[in-house]
Amino acid sequence: MNQIINKVGTYNFSAEPFHCDFSNRIMPGHLGNQMLNASDYHSDERGYGIRYLNTINKTWVLSRLCIEMEQFPKAYTQYTISTWVDKVMHSFTTRNFDVLSSDGTPLGYGRSIWALIDTETRQPFEIAKVNNGVIQQFVETTRPCPIAEPDRVRITQPTTLALQLKACYSDVDINGHVNSIKYVEHALDLFDLSWYRQHQLKRIDIAYVAESHEGDQLNFYKASLGNEEFAIKVVRFDKTAQTEKECVRIKVKFVKE
Amino acid sequence: MNQIINKVGTYNFSAEPFHCDFSNRIMPGHLGNQMLNASDYHSDERGYGIRYLNTINKTWVLSRLCIEMEQFPKAYTQYTISTWVDKVMHSFTTRNFDVLSSDGTPLGYGRSIWALIDTETRQPFEIAKVNNGVIQQFVETTRPCPIAEPDRVRITQPTTLALQLKACYSDVDINGHVNSIKYVEHALDLFDLSWYRQHQLKRIDIAYVAESHEGDQLNFYKASLGNEEFAIKVVRFDKTAQTEKECVRIKVKFVKE
Repeated sequence: MNQIINKVGTYNFSAEPFHCDFSNRIMPGHLGNQMLNASDYHSDERGYGIRYLNTINKTWVLSRLCIEMEQFPKAYTQYTISTWVDKVMHSFTTRNFDVLSSDGTPLGYGRSIWALIDTETRQPFEIAKVNNGVIQQFVETTRPCPIAEPDRVRITQPTTLALQLKACYSDVDINGHVNSIKYVEHALDLFDLSWYRQHQLKRIDIAYVAESHEGDQLNFYKASLGNEEFAIKVVRFDKTAQTEKECVRIKVKFVKE
Repeated sequence: MNQIINKVGTYNFSAEPFHCDFSNRIMPGHLGNQMLNASDYHSDERGYGIRYLNTINKTWVLSRLCIEMEQFPKAYTQYTISTWVDKVMHSFTTRNFDVLSSDGTPLGYGRSIWALIDTETRQPFEIAKVNNGVIQQFVETTRPCPIAEPDRVRITQPTTLALQLKACYSDVDINGHVNSIKYVEHALDLFDLSWYRQHQLKRIDIAYVAESHEGDQLNFYKASLGNEEFAIKVVRFDKTAQTEKECVRIKVKFVKE
Protein backbone atom coordinates (compact mmCIF):
# COMPACT_ATOMS: atom_id res chain seq x y z
CA MET A 1 0.00 0.00 0.00
CA ASN A 2 1.36 3.37 -0.94
CA GLN A 3 1.21 6.65 0.97
CA ILE A 4 -2.32 8.00 0.85
CA ILE A 5 -0.94 11.40 -0.15
CA ASN A 6 0.22 10.41 -3.63
CA LYS A 7 -1.92 11.07 -6.66
CA VAL A 8 -0.60 7.93 -8.28
CA GLY A 9 -1.12 4.54 -6.63
CA THR A 10 1.46 1.84 -7.32
CA TYR A 11 0.79 -1.79 -6.50
CA ASN A 12 3.10 -4.78 -6.61
CA PHE A 13 2.03 -8.04 -8.21
CA SER A 14 3.64 -11.38 -8.94
CA ALA A 15 3.17 -13.20 -12.22
CA GLU A 16 2.38 -16.45 -10.43
CA PRO A 17 3.01 -19.44 -12.71
CA PHE A 18 -0.52 -20.80 -12.35
CA HIS A 19 -1.96 -17.52 -13.58
CA CYS A 20 0.08 -17.80 -16.77
CA ASP A 21 -0.90 -19.21 -20.14
CA PHE A 22 0.81 -21.91 -22.18
CA SER A 23 3.48 -19.39 -23.25
CA ASN A 24 4.56 -18.64 -19.65
CA ARG A 25 3.07 -15.16 -19.74
CA ILE A 26 0.39 -13.82 -17.45
CA MET A 27 -3.13 -14.49 -18.75
CA PRO A 28 -4.46 -11.26 -20.29
CA GLY A 29 -7.64 -11.59 -18.25
CA HIS A 30 -5.68 -11.97 -15.05
CA LEU A 31 -3.72 -8.81 -15.82
CA GLY A 32 -6.99 -7.01 -16.63
CA ASN A 33 -8.45 -7.94 -13.26
CA GLN A 34 -5.26 -6.78 -11.54
CA MET A 35 -5.79 -3.41 -13.25
CA LEU A 36 -9.33 -3.32 -11.84
CA ASN A 37 -7.92 -4.27 -8.44
CA ALA A 38 -5.36 -1.47 -8.68
CA SER A 39 -8.17 0.96 -9.60
CA ASP A 40 -10.19 -0.16 -6.63
CA TYR A 41 -7.28 0.03 -4.17
CA HIS A 42 -6.35 3.48 -5.47
CA SER A 43 -9.86 4.93 -5.14
CA ASP A 44 -10.50 3.08 -1.86
CA GLU A 45 -7.38 4.54 -0.24
CA ARG A 46 -8.43 8.03 -1.37
CA GLY A 47 -12.00 8.04 -0.09
CA TYR A 48 -14.00 7.32 -3.24
CA GLY A 49 -13.79 3.55 -3.72
CA ILE A 50 -16.74 1.20 -4.13
CA ARG A 51 -16.51 0.05 -0.51
CA TYR A 52 -17.37 3.59 0.60
CA LEU A 53 -19.66 4.33 -2.36
CA ASN A 54 -21.80 1.27 -1.61
CA THR A 55 -22.62 2.75 1.81
CA ILE A 56 -24.19 5.77 0.06
CA ASN A 57 -25.86 3.72 -2.73
CA LYS A 58 -23.39 4.72 -5.40
CA THR A 59 -20.92 2.74 -7.46
CA TRP A 60 -18.39 2.98 -10.28
CA VAL A 61 -19.33 1.47 -13.62
CA LEU A 62 -16.64 0.80 -16.19
CA SER A 63 -17.57 2.42 -19.48
CA ARG A 64 -14.44 1.93 -21.60
CA LEU A 65 -11.13 0.22 -21.22
CA CYS A 66 -8.11 -0.27 -23.41
CA ILE A 67 -4.93 -2.15 -22.65
CA GLU A 68 -1.88 -2.02 -24.90
CA MET A 69 1.09 -4.23 -24.10
CA GLU A 70 4.65 -4.38 -25.34
CA GLN A 71 4.93 -7.64 -23.48
CA PHE A 72 2.95 -9.47 -20.85
CA PRO A 73 4.73 -10.18 -17.54
CA LYS A 74 6.50 -13.53 -17.58
CA ALA A 75 5.99 -16.30 -15.03
CA TYR A 76 7.98 -15.85 -11.79
CA THR A 77 8.57 -12.12 -12.38
CA GLN A 78 7.32 -9.21 -10.32
CA TYR A 79 5.57 -6.23 -11.85
CA THR A 80 3.85 -3.08 -10.72
CA ILE A 81 0.63 -1.50 -11.86
CA SER A 82 0.43 2.25 -11.31
CA THR A 83 -2.86 4.01 -11.75
CA TRP A 84 -4.09 7.58 -11.55
CA VAL A 85 -7.12 9.65 -12.47
CA ASP A 86 -6.25 12.31 -15.00
CA LYS A 87 -9.65 13.86 -15.61
CA VAL A 88 -12.94 14.33 -13.75
CA MET A 89 -16.02 15.52 -15.65
CA HIS A 90 -19.34 15.64 -13.76
CA SER A 91 -20.07 11.92 -13.36
CA PHE A 92 -17.14 10.54 -15.41
CA THR A 93 -13.47 10.01 -14.69
CA THR A 94 -10.68 8.91 -16.92
CA ARG A 95 -8.13 6.66 -15.25
CA ASN A 96 -4.79 5.61 -16.69
CA PHE A 97 -2.43 2.77 -15.96
CA ASP A 98 1.12 1.73 -16.57
CA VAL A 99 2.57 -1.72 -16.08
CA LEU A 100 6.28 -1.88 -15.32
CA SER A 101 8.63 -4.78 -14.78
CA SER A 102 10.51 -4.86 -11.49
CA ASP A 103 13.49 -3.12 -13.13
CA GLY A 104 11.24 -0.28 -14.32
CA THR A 105 10.90 -1.36 -17.96
CA PRO A 106 7.48 -0.36 -19.32
CA LEU A 107 5.54 -3.48 -20.26
CA GLY A 108 2.31 -1.75 -21.22
CA TYR A 109 -0.37 0.81 -20.51
CA GLY A 110 -4.08 1.14 -20.02
CA ARG A 111 -6.74 3.81 -20.24
CA SER A 112 -10.26 3.67 -18.89
CA ILE A 113 -13.43 5.70 -18.47
CA TRP A 114 -15.66 5.17 -15.45
CA ALA A 115 -19.13 6.51 -14.65
CA LEU A 116 -20.35 7.16 -11.14
CA ILE A 117 -23.96 6.05 -10.79
CA ASP A 118 -26.67 5.83 -8.16
CA THR A 119 -27.30 2.13 -7.50
CA GLU A 120 -31.05 2.68 -7.04
CA THR A 121 -31.89 4.95 -9.96
CA ARG A 122 -28.94 3.70 -12.13
CA GLN A 123 -28.56 7.36 -13.14
CA PRO A 124 -25.25 9.26 -13.29
CA PHE A 125 -24.26 11.02 -10.07
CA GLU A 126 -22.02 14.08 -9.72
CA ILE A 127 -18.57 13.06 -8.50
CA ALA A 128 -18.01 16.43 -6.80
CA LYS A 129 -20.75 15.51 -4.33
CA VAL A 130 -18.88 12.41 -3.08
CA ASN A 131 -16.96 12.84 0.16
CA ASN A 132 -16.70 16.64 -0.26
CA GLY A 133 -15.21 16.31 -3.72
CA VAL A 134 -12.16 14.53 -2.32
CA ILE A 135 -11.25 13.14 -5.74
CA GLN A 136 -10.09 16.59 -6.89
CA GLN A 137 -7.09 16.39 -4.55
CA PHE A 138 -5.79 13.41 -6.48
CA VAL A 139 -6.07 14.35 -10.14
CA GLU A 140 -2.74 13.75 -11.86
CA THR A 141 -2.37 15.48 -15.21
CA THR A 142 1.36 15.28 -15.89
CA ARG A 143 2.18 11.55 -15.90
CA PRO A 144 2.35 10.32 -19.48
CA CYS A 145 0.27 7.46 -20.84
CA PRO A 146 1.57 7.07 -24.40
CA ILE A 147 -1.26 5.06 -25.96
CA ALA A 148 -4.37 6.09 -27.86
CA GLU A 149 -7.63 6.74 -26.02
CA PRO A 150 -10.06 3.81 -25.69
CA ASP A 151 -11.82 3.23 -28.97
CA ARG A 152 -15.62 3.40 -29.12
CA VAL A 153 -15.46 0.18 -31.17
CA ARG A 154 -17.94 0.84 -33.94
CA ILE A 155 -18.63 -2.47 -35.66
CA THR A 156 -19.85 -1.94 -39.21
CA GLN A 157 -18.55 -5.20 -40.65
CA PRO A 158 -20.75 -8.30 -40.93
CA THR A 159 -20.21 -10.60 -37.96
CA THR A 160 -20.79 -14.29 -37.43
CA LEU A 161 -22.02 -16.00 -34.29
CA ALA A 162 -18.92 -17.54 -32.70
CA LEU A 163 -19.98 -18.52 -29.18
CA GLN A 164 -23.12 -18.87 -27.09
CA LEU A 165 -22.96 -19.26 -23.34
CA LYS A 166 -25.01 -18.85 -20.22
CA ALA A 167 -23.43 -16.53 -17.66
CA CYS A 168 -22.47 -18.63 -14.61
CA TYR A 169 -21.37 -18.29 -11.01
CA SER A 170 -17.72 -17.72 -11.95
CA ASP A 171 -18.65 -14.98 -14.43
CA VAL A 172 -20.16 -12.80 -11.70
CA ASP A 173 -17.93 -10.63 -9.52
CA ILE A 174 -18.18 -8.60 -6.34
CA ASN A 175 -20.51 -6.14 -8.12
CA GLY A 176 -23.11 -8.85 -8.75
CA HIS A 177 -22.95 -8.59 -12.53
CA VAL A 178 -20.82 -10.31 -15.15
CA ASN A 179 -17.25 -9.21 -14.47
CA SER A 180 -15.93 -6.66 -16.97
CA ILE A 181 -12.90 -8.77 -17.75
CA LYS A 182 -14.85 -12.02 -18.15
CA TYR A 183 -16.18 -10.73 -21.48
CA VAL A 184 -12.57 -10.31 -22.55
CA GLU A 185 -11.62 -13.81 -21.42
CA HIS A 186 -14.50 -15.34 -23.36
CA ALA A 187 -13.60 -13.19 -26.39
CA LEU A 188 -9.97 -14.29 -26.26
CA ASP A 189 -11.16 -17.90 -26.17
CA LEU A 190 -12.52 -17.37 -29.70
CA PHE A 191 -8.93 -17.77 -30.88
CA ASP A 192 -7.29 -21.14 -30.63
CA LEU A 193 -3.91 -22.08 -29.29
CA SER A 194 -2.39 -22.35 -32.76
CA TRP A 195 -3.26 -18.66 -33.26
CA TYR A 196 -1.63 -17.70 -29.95
CA ARG A 197 1.47 -19.69 -30.87
CA GLN A 198 2.00 -17.29 -33.79
CA HIS A 199 0.48 -14.08 -32.47
CA GLN A 200 0.79 -11.91 -29.41
CA LEU A 201 -2.10 -9.85 -28.12
CA LYS A 202 -1.08 -6.24 -28.65
CA ARG A 203 -4.08 -4.13 -27.80
CA ILE A 204 -7.63 -4.58 -26.66
CA ASP A 205 -10.40 -1.96 -26.61
CA ILE A 206 -13.63 -2.61 -24.78
CA ALA A 207 -16.79 -0.48 -24.81
CA TYR A 208 -19.28 -1.47 -22.11
CA VAL A 209 -22.85 -0.69 -23.16
CA ALA A 210 -25.11 -2.64 -20.80
CA GLU A 211 -24.67 -5.03 -17.90
CA SER A 212 -25.50 -8.70 -17.93
CA HIS A 213 -26.21 -11.07 -15.05
CA GLU A 214 -26.06 -14.72 -14.08
CA GLY A 215 -28.37 -16.84 -16.22
CA ASP A 216 -28.27 -14.44 -19.17
CA GLN A 217 -27.57 -16.05 -22.51
CA LEU A 218 -24.66 -14.21 -24.08
CA ASN A 219 -23.96 -14.45 -27.79
CA PHE A 220 -20.53 -13.52 -29.11
CA TYR A 221 -20.36 -12.28 -32.71
CA LYS A 222 -17.00 -11.97 -34.38
CA ALA A 223 -15.68 -10.12 -37.45
CA SER A 224 -12.20 -10.02 -38.91
CA LEU A 225 -11.04 -6.46 -39.59
CA GLY A 226 -7.88 -7.55 -41.39
CA ASN A 227 -4.30 -6.98 -40.24
CA GLU A 228 -4.68 -9.33 -37.27
CA GLU A 229 -7.49 -7.19 -35.91
CA PHE A 230 -10.94 -8.48 -34.87
CA ALA A 231 -14.17 -7.03 -33.55
CA ILE A 232 -16.36 -8.96 -31.12
CA LYS A 233 -19.86 -7.93 -30.17
CA VAL A 234 -21.44 -9.47 -27.08
CA VAL A 235 -25.22 -9.40 -26.89
CA ARG A 236 -27.70 -10.64 -24.32
CA PHE A 237 -30.29 -12.86 -25.97
CA ASP A 238 -33.81 -12.68 -24.59
CA LYS A 239 -35.34 -16.09 -25.32
CA THR A 240 -38.92 -15.01 -24.67
CA ALA A 241 -38.86 -11.91 -26.83
CA GLN A 242 -36.28 -13.42 -29.23
CA THR A 243 -34.42 -10.10 -29.13
CA GLU A 244 -30.79 -9.19 -28.64
CA LYS A 245 -29.49 -6.38 -26.46
CA GLU A 246 -25.95 -5.18 -27.03
CA CYS A 247 -23.79 -5.46 -23.89
CA VAL A 248 -20.14 -5.11 -24.89
CA ARG A 249 -18.10 -4.29 -28.00
CA ILE A 250 -14.50 -5.46 -28.13
CA LYS A 251 -11.68 -4.88 -30.57
CA VAL A 252 -8.55 -7.01 -30.36
CA LYS A 253 -5.31 -6.36 -32.19
CA PHE A 254 -2.65 -9.04 -32.44
CA VAL A 255 0.89 -8.87 -33.78
CA LYS A 256 2.78 -11.71 -35.39
CA GLU A 257 5.46 -13.17 -33.15
CA MET B 1 9.83 -15.51 -0.33
CA ASN B 2 10.79 -17.41 2.77
CA GLN B 3 14.18 -18.67 3.89
CA ILE B 4 15.21 -21.60 1.73
CA ILE B 5 16.13 -23.55 4.87
CA ASN B 6 12.57 -24.05 6.16
CA LYS B 7 10.71 -27.23 5.44
CA VAL B 8 7.47 -25.28 5.31
CA GLY B 9 7.01 -22.51 2.75
CA THR B 10 4.67 -19.65 3.67
CA TYR B 11 3.40 -17.22 1.05
CA ASN B 12 1.40 -14.03 1.46
CA PHE B 13 -1.60 -13.32 -0.72
CA SER B 14 -4.23 -10.60 -0.94
CA ALA B 15 -7.90 -11.36 -1.48
CA GLU B 16 -8.14 -8.74 -4.22
CA PRO B 17 -11.75 -7.61 -4.70
CA PHE B 18 -11.81 -8.49 -8.40
CA HIS B 19 -10.86 -12.07 -7.63
CA CYS B 20 -13.86 -12.38 -5.34
CA ASP B 21 -17.32 -13.73 -6.07
CA PHE B 22 -20.70 -12.05 -5.56
CA SER B 23 -20.46 -12.78 -1.81
CA ASN B 24 -17.19 -10.84 -1.39
CA ARG B 25 -15.18 -14.00 -0.81
CA ILE B 26 -12.26 -15.18 -2.87
CA MET B 27 -13.32 -17.34 -5.81
CA PRO B 28 -12.65 -20.99 -4.89
CA GLY B 29 -10.80 -21.51 -8.17
CA HIS B 30 -8.58 -18.52 -7.49
CA LEU B 31 -7.67 -19.90 -4.07
CA GLY B 32 -7.01 -23.29 -5.66
CA ASN B 33 -4.57 -21.79 -8.14
CA GLN B 34 -2.85 -19.89 -5.32
CA MET B 35 -2.34 -23.27 -3.62
CA LEU B 36 -0.75 -24.58 -6.82
CA ASN B 37 1.38 -21.42 -6.95
CA ALA B 38 2.47 -21.95 -3.34
CA SER B 39 3.36 -25.58 -4.20
CA ASP B 40 5.39 -24.43 -7.15
CA TYR B 41 7.21 -21.68 -5.23
CA HIS B 42 7.94 -24.10 -2.38
CA SER B 43 9.40 -26.82 -4.62
CA ASP B 44 11.15 -24.28 -6.86
CA GLU B 45 12.97 -22.69 -3.92
CA ARG B 46 14.08 -26.13 -2.71
CA GLY B 47 15.52 -27.44 -5.98
CA TYR B 48 12.75 -29.71 -7.25
CA GLY B 49 10.24 -27.35 -8.90
CA ILE B 50 8.90 -27.67 -12.44
CA ARG B 51 11.25 -24.93 -13.71
CA TYR B 52 14.19 -27.16 -12.86
CA LEU B 53 12.42 -30.42 -13.67
CA ASN B 54 11.57 -29.22 -17.18
CA THR B 55 15.30 -28.89 -17.91
CA ILE B 56 15.69 -32.64 -17.25
CA ASN B 57 12.44 -33.65 -19.02
CA LYS B 58 10.54 -34.31 -15.83
CA THR B 59 7.47 -32.70 -14.32
CA TRP B 60 4.99 -32.91 -11.45
CA VAL B 61 1.52 -34.15 -12.21
CA LEU B 62 -1.27 -33.54 -9.72
CA SER B 63 -2.97 -36.81 -8.88
CA ARG B 64 -5.34 -35.86 -6.05
CA LEU B 65 -6.31 -32.69 -4.28
CA CYS B 66 -8.73 -31.83 -1.53
CA ILE B 67 -9.50 -28.44 -0.05
CA GLU B 68 -11.61 -28.00 3.06
CA MET B 69 -12.48 -24.49 4.20
CA GLU B 70 -13.99 -23.06 7.37
CA GLN B 71 -14.30 -19.81 5.47
CA PHE B 72 -12.91 -18.36 2.27
CA PRO B 73 -10.78 -15.21 2.60
CA LYS B 74 -12.86 -12.05 2.35
CA ALA B 75 -12.24 -9.19 -0.08
CA TYR B 76 -9.53 -6.74 1.02
CA THR B 77 -8.02 -9.15 3.56
CA GLN B 78 -4.57 -10.71 3.54
CA TYR B 79 -4.00 -14.41 3.99
CA THR B 80 -1.12 -16.86 3.92
CA ILE B 81 -0.82 -20.25 2.34
CA SER B 82 1.72 -22.54 3.96
CA THR B 83 2.69 -25.76 2.26
CA TRP B 84 4.96 -28.65 3.03
CA VAL B 85 5.68 -32.16 1.80
CA ASP B 86 4.98 -34.73 4.49
CA LYS B 87 5.71 -37.93 2.61
CA VAL B 88 7.85 -39.12 -0.30
CA MET B 89 7.27 -42.56 -1.80
CA HIS B 90 9.24 -43.52 -4.93
CA SER B 91 7.60 -41.27 -7.53
CA PHE B 92 4.82 -39.80 -5.33
CA THR B 93 4.75 -37.07 -2.74
CA THR B 94 1.98 -35.94 -0.46
CA ARG B 95 1.84 -32.20 0.10
CA ASN B 96 -0.31 -30.41 2.66
CA PHE B 97 -1.53 -26.84 2.97
CA ASP B 98 -2.98 -24.52 5.52
CA VAL B 99 -4.65 -21.21 4.81
CA LEU B 100 -4.52 -18.64 7.62
CA SER B 101 -5.94 -15.17 7.95
CA SER B 102 -3.47 -12.37 8.69
CA ASP B 103 -4.18 -12.72 12.44
CA GLY B 104 -3.35 -16.44 12.29
CA THR B 105 -6.91 -17.79 12.33
CA PRO B 106 -7.11 -21.03 10.34
CA LEU B 107 -9.40 -20.55 7.35
CA GLY B 108 -8.89 -23.96 5.79
CA TYR B 109 -6.59 -26.76 4.72
CA GLY B 110 -5.58 -28.77 1.73
CA ARG B 111 -4.01 -32.12 0.95
CA SER B 112 -2.59 -33.28 -2.33
CA ILE B 113 -0.78 -36.15 -4.01
CA TRP B 114 1.66 -35.50 -6.85
CA ALA B 115 3.43 -37.86 -9.22
CA LEU B 116 6.82 -37.16 -10.73
CA ILE B 117 6.88 -38.27 -14.36
CA ASP B 118 9.20 -38.26 -17.33
CA THR B 119 7.76 -35.85 -19.91
CA GLU B 120 8.86 -38.04 -22.82
CA THR B 121 7.80 -41.49 -21.67
CA ARG B 122 5.00 -40.17 -19.37
CA GLN B 123 6.16 -42.86 -16.94
CA PRO B 124 6.73 -42.36 -13.19
CA PHE B 125 10.26 -41.32 -12.22
CA GLU B 126 12.00 -41.90 -8.90
CA ILE B 127 12.07 -38.70 -6.85
CA ALA B 128 15.28 -39.73 -5.06
CA LYS B 129 17.10 -39.36 -8.40
CA VAL B 130 16.21 -35.67 -8.74
CA ASN B 131 18.91 -33.22 -7.68
CA ASN B 132 20.63 -35.78 -5.44
CA GLY B 133 17.44 -36.51 -3.56
CA VAL B 134 17.29 -32.94 -2.28
CA ILE B 135 13.60 -33.28 -1.43
CA GLN B 136 14.43 -35.51 1.58
CA GLN B 137 15.93 -32.51 3.39
CA PHE B 138 12.56 -30.82 3.41
CA VAL B 139 10.09 -33.46 4.52
CA GLU B 140 7.99 -32.10 7.38
CA THR B 141 6.14 -34.75 9.35
CA THR B 142 5.06 -32.91 12.49
CA ARG B 143 2.90 -30.02 11.27
CA PRO B 144 -0.78 -30.94 11.62
CA CYS B 145 -3.25 -30.94 8.74
CA PRO B 146 -6.53 -31.79 10.46
CA ILE B 147 -8.62 -32.84 7.47
CA ALA B 148 -9.29 -36.21 5.86
CA GLU B 149 -7.06 -37.50 3.07
CA PRO B 150 -8.14 -36.75 -0.50
CA ASP B 151 -11.00 -39.02 -1.49
CA ARG B 152 -10.62 -41.32 -4.49
CA VAL B 153 -14.10 -40.18 -5.56
CA ARG B 154 -15.74 -43.41 -6.62
CA ILE B 155 -18.92 -42.50 -8.48
CA THR B 156 -21.42 -45.37 -8.36
CA GLN B 157 -24.58 -43.25 -8.63
CA PRO B 158 -26.27 -42.56 -11.97
CA THR B 159 -25.15 -39.22 -13.39
CA THR B 160 -26.69 -36.85 -15.88
CA LEU B 161 -24.92 -34.80 -18.52
CA ALA B 162 -24.80 -31.27 -17.12
CA LEU B 163 -22.32 -29.41 -19.34
CA GLN B 164 -20.45 -29.84 -22.60
CA LEU B 165 -17.60 -27.56 -23.56
CA LYS B 166 -14.56 -27.36 -25.77
CA ALA B 167 -11.33 -26.70 -23.87
CA CYS B 168 -10.08 -23.23 -24.88
CA TYR B 169 -7.05 -21.00 -24.67
CA SER B 170 -7.91 -19.84 -21.14
CA ASP B 171 -8.34 -23.42 -19.90
CA VAL B 172 -4.72 -24.27 -20.67
CA ASP B 173 -1.96 -23.36 -18.23
CA ILE B 174 1.81 -23.18 -18.15
CA ASN B 175 1.97 -27.01 -18.39
CA GLY B 176 0.23 -26.99 -21.78
CA HIS B 177 -2.76 -29.03 -20.62
CA VAL B 178 -6.10 -28.05 -19.13
CA ASN B 179 -5.31 -26.44 -15.78
CA SER B 180 -6.10 -28.68 -12.79
CA ILE B 181 -8.24 -26.02 -11.18
CA LYS B 182 -10.17 -25.18 -14.36
CA TYR B 183 -12.06 -28.47 -14.03
CA VAL B 184 -13.10 -27.30 -10.58
CA GLU B 185 -14.21 -23.89 -11.85
CA HIS B 186 -16.36 -25.46 -14.55
CA ALA B 187 -17.75 -27.94 -12.00
CA LEU B 188 -18.65 -25.14 -9.59
CA ASP B 189 -20.44 -23.39 -12.46
CA LEU B 190 -22.91 -26.30 -12.47
CA PHE B 191 -24.51 -24.65 -9.42
CA ASP B 192 -26.34 -21.39 -9.88
CA LEU B 193 -26.13 -18.21 -7.86
CA SER B 194 -29.31 -18.98 -5.94
CA TRP B 195 -27.60 -22.14 -4.66
CA TYR B 196 -24.50 -20.16 -3.59
CA ARG B 197 -26.71 -17.62 -1.82
CA GLN B 198 -27.83 -20.39 0.53
CA HIS B 199 -24.79 -22.66 0.61
CA GLN B 200 -21.12 -22.34 1.25
CA LEU B 201 -18.59 -24.64 -0.37
CA LYS B 202 -17.14 -26.71 2.45
CA ARG B 203 -14.92 -29.31 0.85
CA ILE B 204 -13.86 -30.41 -2.57
CA ASP B 205 -12.05 -33.62 -3.54
CA ILE B 206 -10.55 -34.06 -6.96
CA ALA B 207 -9.06 -37.22 -8.47
CA TYR B 208 -7.11 -36.58 -11.68
CA VAL B 209 -7.14 -39.59 -13.97
CA ALA B 210 -6.06 -38.36 -17.40
CA GLU B 211 -5.02 -35.06 -18.95
CA SER B 212 -7.00 -33.11 -21.52
CA HIS B 213 -5.86 -30.49 -23.99
CA GLU B 214 -7.11 -27.52 -25.97
CA GLY B 215 -9.80 -28.50 -28.47
CA ASP B 216 -10.91 -31.54 -26.46
CA GLN B 217 -14.63 -31.79 -25.92
CA LEU B 218 -15.23 -32.21 -22.20
CA ASN B 219 -18.50 -33.56 -20.86
CA PHE B 220 -19.44 -32.94 -17.23
CA TYR B 221 -21.72 -35.53 -15.61
CA LYS B 222 -23.30 -34.74 -12.28
CA ALA B 223 -24.96 -36.76 -9.53
CA SER B 224 -26.48 -35.66 -6.25
CA LEU B 225 -25.19 -37.71 -3.32
CA GLY B 226 -27.62 -36.15 -0.84
CA ASN B 227 -26.75 -33.94 2.14
CA GLU B 228 -25.54 -31.09 -0.08
CA GLU B 229 -22.95 -33.36 -1.63
CA PHE B 230 -22.43 -33.89 -5.36
CA ALA B 231 -20.19 -35.95 -7.61
CA ILE B 232 -19.03 -34.65 -10.99
CA LYS B 233 -17.29 -36.78 -13.58
CA VAL B 234 -15.41 -35.07 -16.40
CA VAL B 235 -14.80 -37.11 -19.53
CA ARG B 236 -13.10 -36.36 -22.82
CA PHE B 237 -15.41 -37.18 -25.70
CA ASP B 238 -13.82 -38.54 -28.86
CA LYS B 239 -16.14 -37.52 -31.70
CA THR B 240 -14.62 -39.87 -34.24
CA ALA B 241 -14.70 -42.99 -32.10
CA GLN B 242 -17.79 -41.78 -30.17
CA THR B 243 -16.07 -42.89 -26.96
CA GLU B 244 -15.53 -41.23 -23.62
CA LYS B 245 -12.32 -41.24 -21.61
CA GLU B 246 -12.50 -40.35 -17.94
CA CYS B 247 -10.31 -37.36 -17.02
CA VAL B 248 -11.33 -36.09 -13.60
CA ARG B 249 -13.66 -37.08 -10.76
CA ILE B 250 -14.81 -34.39 -8.36
CA LYS B 251 -16.81 -34.46 -5.15
CA VAL B 252 -18.15 -31.20 -3.70
CA LYS B 253 -19.66 -30.80 -0.28
CA PHE B 254 -21.63 -27.69 0.61
CA VAL B 255 -23.04 -26.54 3.93
CA LYS B 256 -26.15 -24.44 4.39
CA GLU B 257 -25.39 -20.86 5.35
